Amino acid sequence: MEHSGSLQGDPKLKAQLIRQIRTAEGHLAGIRKMVEGEQYCVDILKQIAAVQGILSRAARTLAHAHTLHCVRGAIEEGKGEAAIDELFEALKYLKHF
Amino acid sequence: MEHSGSLQGDPKLKAQLIRQIRTAEGHLAGIRKMVEGEQYCVDILKQIAAVQGILSRAARTLAHAHTLHCVRGAIEEGKGEAAIDELFEALKYLKHF
Amino acid sequence: MEHSGSLQGDPKLKAQLIRQIRTAEGHLAGIRKMVEGEQYCVDILKQIAAVQGILSRAARTLAHAHTLHCVRGAIEEGKGEAAIDELFEALKYLKHF
Amino acid sequence: MEHSGSLQGDPKLKAQLIRQIRTAEGHLAGIRKMVEGEQYCVDILKQIAAVQGILSRAARTLAHAHTLHCVRGAIEEGKGEAAIDELFEALKYLKHF
Repeated sequence: MEHSGSLQGDPKLKAQLIRQIRTAEGHLAGIRKMVEGEQYCVDILKQIAAVQGILSRAARTLAHAHTLHCVRGAIEEGKGEAAIDELFEALKYLKHF
Repeated sequence: MEHSGSLQGDPKLKAQLIRQIRTAEGHLAGIRKMVEGEQYCVDILKQIAAVQGILSRAARTLAHAHTLHCVRGAIEEGKGEAAIDELFEALKYLKHF
Repeated sequence: MEHSGSLQGDPKLKAQLIRQIRTAEGHLAGIRKMVEGEQYCVDILKQIAAVQGILSRAARTLAHAHTLHCVRGAIEEGKGEAAIDELFEALKYLKHF
Repeated sequence: MEHSGSLQGDPKLKAQLIRQIRTAEGHLAGIRKMVEGEQYCVDILKQIAAVQGILSRAARTLAHAHTLHCVRGAIEEGKGEAAIDELFEALKYLKHF
């Protein structure tokens, strides 16, 4: 499908996503140190839950922007059906949204 | 609860979790570069789904080991109820398990 | 938003959804009988998982059709942004999609 | 595994689960009528989300009780490992917990 994505036209979205991913990366590095330091399993599970929350929010933000920009654009050009199918195919793989 | 976790007695589990978290960290760094390079949203969503999958598997592995070691130990010492409550409290926060 | 939904123009979708919901209702009645008959918890959990699967598929089918019909229509009439916001607001509440 | 489940010894749990399942059945019947009446997709999605919430709570309640009774009992009889494996196998299939 379209390869001119939502990120090009929306520097605020791009910055927000980069920030969310960096935060998730920082959390994961912390979780790895917790595992290396043999910390308590339940505390590690809670940290994994926090990263899952960040990734769900990032996925939702991105899918929303994609629909607002790329899918809307495709619809306006009469190529909406393929764009919508592709979006829902991707959403299907998300473990949590 | 118990602070002698499952990770101390199970070096194989510890190594597996560290490997999974490292893999997730590598994926996230790749996703961040995809966002920085303004790549296609749907491809980024698919990569986020892949990280969600790794984290779910890691959480499941850890919760299973925790139950097998810590919760079982607590039950054998007659302190099972508190350990089970704590486990389910943690599972509740996991977005996907 | 729009109150002329996807279901009006798509009798096949409507029939499919009714069939899925009926199946889920049948499963739930069966699960209730399993609980009343004090059957084994793990077997009941597996049946709950089956109903969750049916509901996720129904939600996905409906959200896809809604996007294809209602959201697309709204975009074509220049009212896309509100329709997209509303869709993602609804998706946010789905436990699993 | 064990076929003397948690439900036998816990009439309060049994009554609570039956109530939750009945509520979910009632919701689903309502959703089916919404589909038959071609009501607005987004309103239907929100109702599906409500049923998902009830089922997740029911699954969590049941898995918790199962661990507290059946799994704990199995551990006390020295058959803990198989019971724990079986529990996590079942949890794996739950779409949301």
